[in-house]
Amino acid sequence: MTKENPSSKRISLNQITTENWSLPDAAEGCVRAEIPWISIWRHKLQEIGLNQSKKIIRDTGLRVSSLCRGGMFPAATDSERQSRLDDNRRAIEEAAELGTDVLVLVCGAAPDRDLDSARQWVAEGIEKLVPYAKDYGIKLGIEPLHPMFAADRSVIVTLKQANTILDTIQSPQVGVIVDVYHVWWDPDLYQQITRAGNKILGFHVSDWAHPLPDLFKGRAMIGDGVIEIRRIRQAVEAAGYTGPIEVEIINQAIWDQPGDETLRVMKERYIEHV
Amino acid sequence: MTKENPSSKRISLNQITTENWSLPDAAEGCVRAEIPWISIWRHKLQEIGLNQSKKIIRDTGLRVSSLCRGGMFPAATDSERQSRLDDNRRAIEEAAELGTDVLVLVCGAAPDRDLDSARQWVAEGIEKLVPYAKDYGIKLGIEPLHPMFAADRSVIVTLKQANTILDTIQSPQVGVIVDVYHVWWDPDLYQQITRAGNKILGFHVSDWAHPLPDLFKGRAMIGDGVIEIRRIRQAVEAAGYTGPIEVEIINQAIWDQPGDETLRVMKERYIEHV
Repeated sequence: MTKENPSSKRISLNQITTENWSLPDAAEGCVRAEIPWISIWRHKLQEIGLNQSKKIIRDTGLRVSSLCRGGMFPAATDSERQSRLDDNRRAIEEAAELGTDVLVLVCGAAPDRDLDSARQWVAEGIEKLVPYAKDYGIKLGIEPLHPMFAADRSVIVTLKQANTILDTIQSPQVGVIVDVYHVWWDPDLYQQITRAGNKILGFHVSDWAHPLPDLFKGRAMIGDGVIEIRRIRQAVEAAGYTGPIEVEIINQAIWDQPGDETLRVMKERYIEHV
Repeated sequence: MTKENPSSKRISLNQITTENWSLPDAAEGCVRAEIPWISIWRHKLQEIGLNQSKKIIRDTGLRVSSLCRGGMFPAATDSERQSRLDDNRRAIEEAAELGTDVLVLVCGAAPDRDLDSARQWVAEGIEKLVPYAKDYGIKLGIEPLHPMFAADRSVIVTLKQANTILDTIQSPQVGVIVDVYHVWWDPDLYQQITRAGNKILGFHVSDWAHPLPDLFKGRAMIGDGVIEIRRIRQAVEAAGYTGPIEVEIINQAIWDQPGDETLRVMKERYIEHV
């Protein structure tokens, strides 16, 4: 494996990594740590409102790598599925207002035991959003989640599934997000990264420690786990993705430490392991 | 979905479901509950020894659906990998002594971050065991585990991977185990069950509740989760498997309840949901 490091100009703070920080805190933290990108979560946006958020981004000069998240398409009734689509349209508008061109999609779980229907609803939901996304200049990034989230967060669990949806929809508005935590175990990973090619819209890094401290909040700091992060990053680059690299770590112990310390460590580890 | 139930003659108690019971306890429990099959774990065998275990099985008239488990092939050094193979040979001998023809393989994790090498060691390890398994009339069942166990228990995480190993080894001595808990999320599941065909050596049932109470001890009683168990059972049957169906539930709350109660509930749920 080569030791070529990624450019420090590509590092992005995915805001969930510093969950205890508000958006102003996180933006100022990025400026102090010389992190040029930020990925914004919608619950953080809602805390202070869209206009205030836009002002903060403008004032700090940060670039927004993505808005997290749309998706959650499957639901038991027509009207609930419609209301999910409405919410996705609001997310597209917010993404455009914030000056990013990527909305991350966490696609949603099966409302009952019927995985096939849920997967169909996901594909249909994304297809329905395409014209709206196009109007706003937003790309929709399908993020396959780890199969351990199939029951509660995403019936899209492999990059192959996401790529197959891309083949069906055939729109420049739709692509995939590669998050190492969700896909590292997949025997088809490198083949599917190549297949995704220039449809890769984002690359997220964290690590998988074992034993996993928690199912949802169990992600480890880069370098503290078993994932071949550099190999995956190089594969994603070889496929054509050279955009921002989001550090996205959902971990209670990391949330509980001072945010500046988190940013300092993640920058070090980014150079060493990504 | 049809409501055709599986025969009650096919139900097997996988011994880990009643972890608080010794082998004599479990065997007597099966007799009381009219459960004709049992799957034996090696740590339970060691508690009372092989000869005593054989006597119990003979006296109770139970049939042994499988011995659990061999595997754990990857290791950092040649000598350690050799010692893992030696242990697998002992497991083959024990399986033959107990009168089952199936040894379940939990293949093992990567000793470092190198998944590719670990997967290669698994395939090589299984291939080396084939002649020995043949001598003892034992079939080796590769059990893909859920990808959330890739770091600590099995680098074989999909049925497709297991099928590909079968294609490489081309021996009637090697097949696959389908455990619904490990494979239910897989978009390729039904296609790979068909591909496995008459190489399916075992079928294990439990359920996936969410939120998952625990990563390792988080399996739910049949019917208490989201898995399309009956659909998977019917697919496995359509592929050609009509052997015993093991109820394998690793769950602290179920372990803590009286074993007879566990067996009563699992029989009911088996008829209703499997």
